Amino acid sequence: MKPVHESLAMPRESDPASFSPSRPCRLADVESFDFETDVIVIGFGAAGASAAIGAATEGAQVTLLEVASGNGGTSSMAGGDIYLGGNGGTPAQRANGFEDDTEDFYRYMMMAGGPDADEARTRLYADNALDHYTWLVDQGVPYRTTHLPGKVQAPGTGDCLIWSGSEIAYPFNQHAKPCPRGHLPEVVGEMGGRLLVDTLAARVTDLGVEIHYDARAVALIADGESRVHGVVVRIAGEHRFARARNGVILCAGGFVLNEAMMRQHAPHAARLAPDSLSAGNDDGSGIRMGQSVGGAAIHMDELFLTLPIYPPESHVKGILINEAGQRFTNEDAYPGRVAVHCARQVGNRVFLLVDAGIFEQPSEFSRIEIAAVGESWQEIEREIGMVEGTLVNTVRVHNQYAAKGEDPLFHKTSEWLKPLDEPPFAALACHLGEAFYPFFTLGGLSVKPTGEVLTADSDVIPGLYAAGRTCCGLPRSAEGYSSGMSLGDCTFFGRMAGAAAARKT
Amino acid sequence: MKPVHESLAMPRESDPASFSPSRPCRLADVESFDFETDVIVIGFGAAGASAAIGAATEGAQVTLLEVASGNGGTSSMAGGDIYLGGNGGTPAQRANGFEDDTEDFYRYMMMAGGPDADEARTRLYADNALDHYTWLVDQGVPYRTTHLPGKVQAPGTGDCLIWSGSEIAYPFNQHAKPCPRGHLPEVVGEMGGRLLVDTLAARVTDLGVEIHYDARAVALIADGESRVHGVVVRIAGEHRFARARNGVILCAGGFVLNEAMMRQHAPHAARLAPDSLSAGNDDGSGIRMGQSVGGAAIHMDELFLTLPIYPPESHVKGILINEAGQRFTNEDAYPGRVAVHCARQVGNRVFLLVDAGIFEQPSEFSRIEIAAVGESWQEIEREIGMVEGTLVNTVRVHNQYAAKGEDPLFHKTSEWLKPLDEPPFAALACHLGEAFYPFFTLGGLSVKPTGEVLTADSDVIPGLYAAGRTCCGLPRSAEGYSSGMSLGDCTFFGRMAGAAAARKT
Repeated sequence: MKPVHESLAMPRESDPASFSPSRPCRLADVESFDFETDVIVIGFGAAGASAAIGAATEGAQVTLLEVASGNGGTSSMAGGDIYLGGNGGTPAQRANGFEDDTEDFYRYMMMAGGPDADEARTRLYADNALDHYTWLVDQGVPYRTTHLPGKVQAPGTGDCLIWSGSEIAYPFNQHAKPCPRGHLPEVVGEMGGRLLVDTLAARVTDLGVEIHYDARAVALIADGESRVHGVVVRIAGEHRFARARNGVILCAGGFVLNEAMMRQHAPHAARLAPDSLSAGNDDGSGIRMGQSVGGAAIHMDELFLTLPIYPPESHVKGILINEAGQRFTNEDAYPGRVAVHCARQVGNRVFLLVDAGIFEQPSEFSRIEIAAVGESWQEIEREIGMVEGTLVNTVRVHNQYAAKGEDPLFHKTSEWLKPLDEPPFAALACHLGEAFYPFFTLGGLSVKPTGEVLTADSDVIPGLYAAGRTCCGLPRSAEGYSSGMSLGDCTFFGRMAGAAAARKT
Repeated sequence: MKPVHESLAMPRESDPASFSPSRPCRLADVESFDFETDVIVIGFGAAGASAAIGAATEGAQVTLLEVASGNGGTSSMAGGDIYLGGNGGTPAQRANGFEDDTEDFYRYMMMAGGPDADEARTRLYADNALDHYTWLVDQGVPYRTTHLPGKVQAPGTGDCLIWSGSEIAYPFNQHAKPCPRGHLPEVVGEMGGRLLVDTLAARVTDLGVEIHYDARAVALIADGESRVHGVVVRIAGEHRFARARNGVILCAGGFVLNEAMMRQHAPHAARLAPDSLSAGNDDGSGIRMGQSVGGAAIHMDELFLTLPIYPPESHVKGILINEAGQRFTNEDAYPGRVAVHCARQVGNRVFLLVDAGIFEQPSEFSRIEIAAVGESWQEIEREIGMVEGTLVNTVRVHNQYAAKGEDPLFHKTSEWLKPLDEPPFAALACHLGEAFYPFFTLGGLSVKPTGEVLTADSDVIPGLYAAGRTCCGLPRSAEGYSSGMSLGDCTFFGRMAGAAAARKT
């Protein structure tokens, strides 16, 4: 190499009118800003609403940009339960005799987070989950103090407290005292997510946040050092330059609708379920904007997925087998965990074996069909095409131990153990790609508990925050997911990000 | 938001003397360049050497920066086989009666690449693999035309052609005519990788490439549009600014030594094997530099891992079982695929069951120990703590079908099927975290076949290329990996990246 001493002036190639989430608009190219505010929040789901409230209550001037024509995002499609507890218990927990210790709550959350569980984030959440309940109530979210025991999903009764995870199941029950922690808002029908966002949205409006619907954020505005100064937003067909004095908070959802990103990060998803869960805008644009300024995206292979083998809860006493006729998991864990274990089996066919003592018609939303009925397990084995002696031996071993209330193979709790010995018998088809429920993505931008977006070297990117499924938050392991963890993360860390951005000087 | 019409002049905060791979040095901050060349290659393993040759033979002035004090990188630790074939066969294939059809080669490679196999990349490689063999010979890599049949790994005899993948095994044998495609250079001992890199390195020197050892690339130099202009390199304790007129090619290896990145992308790796495969510099700095200018990193959860159950090849006739006493895969596939299936089982304990008819002392490098010996399978089942009736039934079903040359459960080929009915019997411990071989990472920057680095929106980042394990190349699925695929990818696409950067005007 020869030394040179010339300064370089490279011509600019990109058309400033063609913006892309994965290429920041450079600050020097912004002749003037059309708008200016303290904090810009992108996305009006639960995370965006909470971020806006968090920033506005700290006194910041806040502008919220939402690509859809109304609020809600994918949060509005959820059942609406929020994973809360610790600190001696929420009102619903205490009213039903559950004194949830913070350390049990913390240990459960850490196990749920998998091998890269975020200690700082989990600690902050565990210590403040009761306060967060109070905050939700203060925003206007209504909760009863009633408890539905047993195995329920999306009851739609307006009752509050449910077992929404794997708390009672192995291996969680070995490390943390079980407690129900799913808190549903008081609303009849599966409208909990809708109610939650509407309530938070009303508060956003009350706080004077300026809201733009039909406003698509198309690129961040950054300087040469990747400091974020604002966002280019398309409103009514025109590009507008919006400056955020304090920071931009990306709450634009996950990437489950972005085909290329799904192939590049979670290529096996396509075989899992016939469809994905999204209100229509989880296109990864939030994550891509973060990456465009050097943000690292982590755990991008992790998905929430689930196989609702109950209701009816009696089916939890059945056993799941793979194509080799083998059992492979404790069926009493949260159905999301069960689904992950199904997805690890060779082949796509999974069957739930039940007997006359426990069979009820599967709930309609489960998409579970009867594959075979017979008077003996030999008959079932033959009818669903299992190799002779496989399924039959699996049931024989299971029944032998279940009669004693034991499951030495997978440690199902005795409450859900029963010999499958009452004919007629049935195999229910719980196949991948058919019976699985819509999935969504858990991977996203690497962030501090304040929401500050980090590079791969854990440097903070000045002026940029993320919350909700645009970042990788508390829920980051499909195997540990429990219902209510994503909305808990969205609302709590949305607040944190809003407050952090507001306080920035 | 209120409109503003002021231009912004933000103070620079970062100290120009503290550089980070995940934060580009901005071009405007470079007062003068210390060096200038056409193409800068970072890393002197097989990919970097091939990139330098590719660029220099196209007439470019090339500078190579290597952080270590000598060439080789992790490539030099490999056995040195390269996955080649198609086009009617290489000399070694033809000499041994294998006429490898390009379409069989292509189909096998596409299956090996998993659900996101890169069609364009695979097509280019399949069509040109015979030419690439010729290129390797032209560089001076010596090959015999001898073939070692059967199941061998790292023979160290100087012979050339081996079965290095899952070609004969299910499901690959259903879709592509099997052919051996691992090509080892002629060298005695496990020195193939060393010989390969030394040979290419000699060629690099002959071509007049300027080489700097002990030279750590610490940051890319980019302008406000993420166009890459060069690199900041630390040499003898000082930061030097190096300009690349055409482009920078990142060939800096994977990230297996970067603890934070491993936790964030492949958190389960820690339980797989006691150590990782690296010559010492797979710290993810190449990937981080790419990310710093908006490059997307993909399939970051995928690892090469392997469990060498052979030699002795007779052990392929044994059966692997998990902690539930269940078989779970066809043991005749490539040990890397077998290892993935082991890693999906519940629990860390895996056993290889053998009988007196096939037992030989495991090779020392396999780290496989005898866990139990007995005169009956009942005795083995008891001794290794399996639930009664599980292991015994697994062997019973296996033996019953193996006697007929069938494996209806996992489709092992008849050549490797044998009833395990000759006492004494043994269980060999092949546990995760103990018997598994060192792993390395397969995920990396998203690139075109030219090596051009892409954003998450598949926009090209001008002036930036990547090859080898800094990018996500042909091998991107642990389940499909075959020996020789990574070096094949490193050398072939290293050449492509070098040529593309050289030709850039």
